[in-house]
Amino acid sequence: MSKKGEQSRENILMAAKQLVMQNGFAGTSIDDILKAAGVSKGAFFHHFRSKAHLASELVRWHAGNDIRMFRTLAAEAEAMYDDPYDQLMKFLTDFEAYISNSAEPSRGCMYAVYTYESEALDEDVNAFVAETLQQWSAIYIRKFQEVIDRYPPVRPVSARQLSEMIVSLIEGGLILQRAYGNTQITARQSEHFRDYLDLLFAQSRDAAA
Amino acid sequence: MSKKGEQSRENILMAAKQLVMQNGFAGTSIDDILKAAGVSKGAFFHHFRSKAHLASELVRWHAGNDIRMFRTLAAEAEAMYDDPYDQLMKFLTDFEAYISNSAEPSRGCMYAVYTYESEALDEDVNAFVAETLQQWSAIYIRKFQEVIDRYPPVRPVSARQLSEMIVSLIEGGLILQRAYGNTQITARQSEHFRDYLDLLFAQSRDAAA
Repeated sequence: MSKKGEQSRENILMAAKQLVMQNGFAGTSIDDILKAAGVSKGAFFHHFRSKAHLASELVRWHAGNDIRMFRTLAAEAEAMYDDPYDQLMKFLTDFEAYISNSAEPSRGCMYAVYTYESEALDEDVNAFVAETLQQWSAIYIRKFQEVIDRYPPVRPVSARQLSEMIVSLIEGGLILQRAYGNTQITARQSEHFRDYLDLLFAQSRDAAA
Repeated sequence: MSKKGEQSRENILMAAKQLVMQNGFAGTSIDDILKAAGVSKGAFFHHFRSKAHLASELVRWHAGNDIRMFRTLAAEAEAMYDDPYDQLMKFLTDFEAYISNSAEPSRGCMYAVYTYESEALDEDVNAFVAETLQQWSAIYIRKFQEVIDRYPPVRPVSARQLSEMIVSLIEGGLILQRAYGNTQITARQSEHFRDYLDLLFAQSRDAAA
């Protein structure tokens, strides 16, 4: 694709993302997207066959950026610390700073929008959303497993359980954040979750110190 | 309203609820609702002025039922136990049984649907959703405060924090449940949360025993 073509595709995806996060997928028309992106109908259909095709490309584009961001946060934490617990804390606090960043407050989670509109989407789009949620979870699972292996928790808990819990807290926090118009709620859930981790692992960490 | 009129209104609301939980609000047309409820356009407009009016009445009707259910669970727990911690455990486990009931698995949370479609809804509907989430939270806050007052937690934690955490876990759990097609995920989050409560309060409870 030419550089200009690439930029026009990117503009459409950015405009579509913002509209879908505001109004949902069914509540967003191709005309709304053309207007917001400042592109012609011809340019749109040059890149996307239909609204359903856009739905599929949009979530793939978003997930690419999103998972890359999570992997970068994980890599940075691993570069800075050797101890998996320290890595985990940096990973979680960096995410908290990102999600509560007041310059660009989060409007919610695109996977949640797609999940709640799943009946109107193609099967392969729904499967892709579930796979992406699992890829995201896998980043946590790997780190929790390293922590559990190094510092036996005060009660039995699996890396998978902890991962499901933090992902639920983030998704649910984003709903409350949106309902109450308060950009701090999701970060707060991650902070509470770190309190829980401290209760689980402090004893082993103290013993190892 | 006549008994027949009341029944026809109820049928419309039940059909609308099911469709909105499947397709979102923008993805549900009045025609879809008429077809699912088996009522005429005349009957619909006898009860509702517009789709926007239905949106408002639907969430009020749902919230009435929903908050009543939570208050009933709380009252039953209080009737069975004197100790606020025992009441809390019964309240949470009864909710877990309800939400994972395989006969009528939850399709998600109506407040989440409304929250993600908030831009398309009237201001007073959005305000009502936020108020309802706060009413729901208040049921938890009252009980957590009683527990905290009776059993000082091993680390400082507020009733409001714990309430925000369980509500986030339930909302996020419902998203994962829907994305993965697994009806047990939300109940599992509440179980994990009870593990956290046990770590917070077990020491005080043992000391009091």
